[in-house]
Amino acid sequence: MKRVLLTGAEGRIGTALRTHLADRYELHSLTLEPQDFPSHVGDIADLEQIRPAFEGMDAVVHLAAAAKVTSPWSEILPANIVGTYNVFEASRQTEVGQVVFASSNHAIGMYEVDGAPGIYELDDPRVYDERVEPRPDSLYGVSKVYGEALGRYYAEQHGLRVICLRIGSVNDDDDPTRPLELEASPSKLRTDDEKRRRTRAVCLSQRDCAELVAVALESELPWAVVYGISDNPRQMWDLASARALGYRPRDSAPE
Amino acid sequence: MKRVLLTGAEGRIGTALRTHLADRYELHSLTLEPQDFPSHVGDIADLEQIRPAFEGMDAVVHLAAAAKVTSPWSEILPANIVGTYNVFEASRQTEVGQVVFASSNHAIGMYEVDGAPGIYELDDPRVYDERVEPRPDSLYGVSKVYGEALGRYYAEQHGLRVICLRIGSVNDDDDPTRPLELEASPSKLRTDDEKRRRTRAVCLSQRDCAELVAVALESELPWAVVYGISDNPRQMWDLASARALGYRPRDSAPE
Repeated sequence: MKRVLLTGAEGRIGTALRTHLADRYELHSLTLEPQDFPSHVGDIADLEQIRPAFEGMDAVVHLAAAAKVTSPWSEILPANIVGTYNVFEASRQTEVGQVVFASSNHAIGMYEVDGAPGIYELDDPRVYDERVEPRPDSLYGVSKVYGEALGRYYAEQHGLRVICLRIGSVNDDDDPTRPLELEASPSKLRTDDEKRRRTRAVCLSQRDCAELVAVALESELPWAVVYGISDNPRQMWDLASARALGYRPRDSAPE
Repeated sequence: MKRVLLTGAEGRIGTALRTHLADRYELHSLTLEPQDFPSHVGDIADLEQIRPAFEGMDAVVHLAAAAKVTSPWSEILPANIVGTYNVFEASRQTEVGQVVFASSNHAIGMYEVDGAPGIYELDDPRVYDERVEPRPDSLYGVSKVYGEALGRYYAEQHGLRVICLRIGSVNDDDDPTRPLELEASPSKLRTDDEKRRRTRAVCLSQRDCAELVAVALESELPWAVVYGISDNPRQMWDLASARALGYRPRDSAPE
């Protein structure tokens, strides 16, 4: 089995991956604080502290981040900017072959902010693929554009294989009807109905998220950016490149 | 006259702008160390230290950076990552209307690295516009992709007008025949002849650089990315969007 290090293994997505992928990979965890499961403890803002966790790994799934759209610069800088550099650099130094980077749709979030709420309608024709110009909606989104660019540099200049997943919305309760706020534009969605329409466009179930990570880990591609949502009735982000990796979502938000 | 703050005013491009634009703008300087010309002294890595220099300005031309393609992360992080955030944030806080950001062709440098040396031939058909996917060739290039994304966020979410200039190669001696190394790929250019062919594709004279900054400062566009080279015989970066701003280069590298 491939040896896979999960950074941010204690988080929402890390927990989902530890649940759904434990029988397919030898999972190792890197967490900020000691946990009730085995983990290498270290702060991703400190390269020396985390490097030992990378030794002997076949791949890294980089989830650790200040993960809110509203995260301030004081959290984005150490966790997302410095931390992501340290993860790519530790991977290069220890000769890990692949990094799967948890990017985000917020790297191009302004298309959604501009289009909301009409963009969530089932007959809305707008679809964004991974080649559209970066339009981050937040400092969080900026950090994901940066992380993708850094990943591409490590892929093209250092031979690391890098797959960036522009993940939709993964929820703690895995409820595909939960009304989701458009946090980069609080004024845009006024009603729970509008927020539920957003859900049907952006939600990614925990097992679909795990499947997406798994197909990324199986990929031999040197570089890719793919979106990650479930098989939702409204798809404003193009899943073609995810499907080309082999991604087959099994869940869907209701119409 | 517009009041314009130059960060990195002591550098190569800052010096060229102080020479060529002094009669068109009320230029103010921000430098890291005291100079033999009037300057606000401060480190762009320190927001509180530099903010007073932004008060009352109409625009900022952000040049200060670790400016080498080979600059290590230890210099890129404070100068280009933190520093560029501080410049945009100080501009927002002090209600400066516009930032002209010195980006770089190295934000997409891998197209050139992959194409060299054939890409410098006069009949080579490859041309890259500002909408191609970011492909940084270096940590320096990554920092420029980041700076552009950050600028777009400040433009779209905070109403700052931002023009990013993907500058070619500005030389101290302004010599358009100087053989230029492709520093992101030291092994690619073997002879001075190849390096001179590179020059004829990438060089930007000091007065053309100043003219490009001036047309950016006159622009009312909320957001733009444009390339900056002289009227060179080989143009692998598309000047259409620069020309749309009004840029008319007067110099050219020889064939």
